[in-house]
Amino acid sequence: MLQADLLIKNAAQLLTMAGHSKEPKRGAELADPGIITGGAVAAFDGVIVAVGPTEQVEEEVELLPHARVYDAWGKVVAPCFVEPHTHIVFGGSRQNEFVMRLQGKSYLEIMQAGGGIVNSVKATAAASDAELLETARRRLDHFARHGVGTVEVKSGYGLSVAEELRMLRVIRKLDALHPLDLVPTFLGAHAFPKEYRGREEEYVDLVVEEMIPRVAEEKLARFCDVFCDVGVFTVEQSRRILEAGKRYGLLPKLHADELASFGGAELAAEMGAVSADHLLKASPEGIKALAEAGVIAVLLPGTAFFLNEEYAPARQMIEQGVAVALSTDRNPGSSPTEATHLILTLACIKMKMLPAEALCAATINAAHAIGMAHRVGSLETGKQADVVIIDAPDCNYIPYHFGTSLVEAVFKKGRKIK
Amino acid sequence: MLQADLLIKNAAQLLTMAGHSKEPKRGAELADPGIITGGAVAAFDGVIVAVGPTEQVEEEVELLPHARVYDAWGKVVAPCFVEPHTHIVFGGSRQNEFVMRLQGKSYLEIMQAGGGIVNSVKATAAASDAELLETARRRLDHFARHGVGTVEVKSGYGLSVAEELRMLRVIRKLDALHPLDLVPTFLGAHAFPKEYRGREEEYVDLVVEEMIPRVAEEKLARFCDVFCDVGVFTVEQSRRILEAGKRYGLLPKLHADELASFGGAELAAEMGAVSADHLLKASPEGIKALAEAGVIAVLLPGTAFFLNEEYAPARQMIEQGVAVALSTDRNPGSSPTEATHLILTLACIKMKMLPAEALCAATINAAHAIGMAHRVGSLETGKQADVVIIDAPDCNYIPYHFGTSLVEAVFKKGRKIK
Repeated sequence: MLQADLLIKNAAQLLTMAGHSKEPKRGAELADPGIITGGAVAAFDGVIVAVGPTEQVEEEVELLPHARVYDAWGKVVAPCFVEPHTHIVFGGSRQNEFVMRLQGKSYLEIMQAGGGIVNSVKATAAASDAELLETARRRLDHFARHGVGTVEVKSGYGLSVAEELRMLRVIRKLDALHPLDLVPTFLGAHAFPKEYRGREEEYVDLVVEEMIPRVAEEKLARFCDVFCDVGVFTVEQSRRILEAGKRYGLLPKLHADELASFGGAELAAEMGAVSADHLLKASPEGIKALAEAGVIAVLLPGTAFFLNEEYAPARQMIEQGVAVALSTDRNPGSSPTEATHLILTLACIKMKMLPAEALCAATINAAHAIGMAHRVGSLETGKQADVVIIDAPDCNYIPYHFGTSLVEAVFKKGRKIK
Repeated sequence: MLQADLLIKNAAQLLTMAGHSKEPKRGAELADPGIITGGAVAAFDGVIVAVGPTEQVEEEVELLPHARVYDAWGKVVAPCFVEPHTHIVFGGSRQNEFVMRLQGKSYLEIMQAGGGIVNSVKATAAASDAELLETARRRLDHFARHGVGTVEVKSGYGLSVAEELRMLRVIRKLDALHPLDLVPTFLGAHAFPKEYRGREEEYVDLVVEEMIPRVAEEKLARFCDVFCDVGVFTVEQSRRILEAGKRYGLLPKLHADELASFGGAELAAEMGAVSADHLLKASPEGIKALAEAGVIAVLLPGTAFFLNEEYAPARQMIEQGVAVALSTDRNPGSSPTEATHLILTLACIKMKMLPAEALCAATINAAHAIGMAHRVGSLETGKQADVVIIDAPDCNYIPYHFGTSLVEAVFKKGRKIK
């Protein structure tokens, strides 16, 4: 008989997301979160040992004397959310730019007043490691309270060899200190530093020839990402950087087609990227290419909401067979939020995803988008016991009751962290 | 020397909202939340006795031995939020209609499947008093956690003499049981009951001749409200109901111009209503009339967000001198949220209000909208010690960091309730 030290039982709905640890959910699969009515999940030493109807799980497992039993009567039990696209390590704060924007100031005026990514680059350089750690820790705490278990974190406010490496080392330290699991991404190609104006190719050389080898040598990142868009990195520059990353074992990701239809989705497909993110302006051909190449589309509706942009064409993507994932894009300029619950609501109200689709996109597909689906994103035996209990009678209620996290309890590797 | 049993000190910003207990803030006044840098507030027995810079307050008051001292270093201290427009007492839940809408079902199809206000009327009738109390209590708890201190609550899911009176009695009981203060509004004219189809005037008679006298006799409400809009109550019917309410001492309020430009704002001005609410489609003449008559515009951007409607023209109203207030409109059909913080964000991002304007609108002006500005909505001596501590470095940060309540502590009448 299986031993268990954790039993969560009697869920009104247990959302397993099962059967998709190898391949993300696509098309009609997205609308099926694998509901077990009256379900239970049992774990031992942080790993799931049984999932099923409560009676069945109770028969299958032997509860150890010190086991914790959580009755989820009337509630939804789901795998912890996964955040596959964040920028949580940075110095300073940018509410002043927000106010300037509300006052009708133009993008150019805000830039001239020191705004934009360079603002965060400057403030990050001015912050000590301890400050960066402490402020990022608070952001992770917000995520944890909202039921997130795993967070991808990008560099990209360094933009020099020393600062990019420092950011990635801070991320590594944060991962060691915090109960949530972090997945680091190198984003040296987030913007061109001011001092490289007019000689952008030299910065690309720096990324390719110095940063990537050092990042790989110290094993500081799993992915290499590029902001490929109008006014940032061209398709050619992005290809060169992602190819260099690949040679060093860094898997490609791409900030694609956020500001303009720019060929980003097409490049992500060509490169076999793990994900293409944003995609507000992705072309129909780009969407088709993503579907064919099996690139995951990470959609970030918080950014469109905050900047009053149009939302990514999620329905079109789902219909074309693209595997869609969701994330907050937590960053100080265009999405200052850790509210994963609001991302689900935005996905529904603004992108016409169904609640079940949004929940699959924020769990198992989000896990695939950062190469973590073998461990997290679903409730299945052998996976980490990353489980969230949500005070909602069914999965539809979660995005419907908007603006408030209904997360009541969070178990990370079987340990209650909320 | 003044005695104090509560001292909240060292606020990065203390937002007093002072000087407007008699008249709401209008025009440029709205952008001034009365900031005291390094401010403090002291209270005795639930009433504010001193407000000012921390050193000054500490000199002015003598702390009693059992006094609670709260250090708000690095944080914003503000009056509790006021919610001047909610429908928190109802049975059932309507996430299924939400999903139908996402699936592209028409309003008519949803109605035919039993959706809309009548759905809640049916579920409310089926719920016991205890069920209504318990579910509404949970909604109030959400509000309390988000820093709300005072909540207006409407009837309107009864639509019969017995059921409307029952709803108002539940609201009275809830007020007695819960630490938050409630202000009851009679909204018998929320919709026409099905059984009055084709003889709507008879229902108006019922409201005027039976409901209003009974509500007044039992002193169950302070305000009388009507849903005056296309397909609901005409301007003439609304006028008749509000006049009847006035005769019985119920002050007029109005659901105005939500679905169409319908003359609602004009009627509110003509009637000298305390507030006109929604106003998405208010005419320029209606807005002018509100300003001249001193009617408060209660804007409800959560509803526009949830239903993908256009937002009310807040900037135009502010420029015309209308006193603007904000609320969630918490209800099961068009705004299932208690997230006052998100309403502030929506006011900024979608209606171009400044953070300071939104904060004034959700505190002192919201208090005026329900006749409570003599007691709450600002931090001034003699007022209730309803104080919220927000984990934000300045007031601009509050709507900027969206989707998450940053409320760290809440004092209601001097007592810590969060």
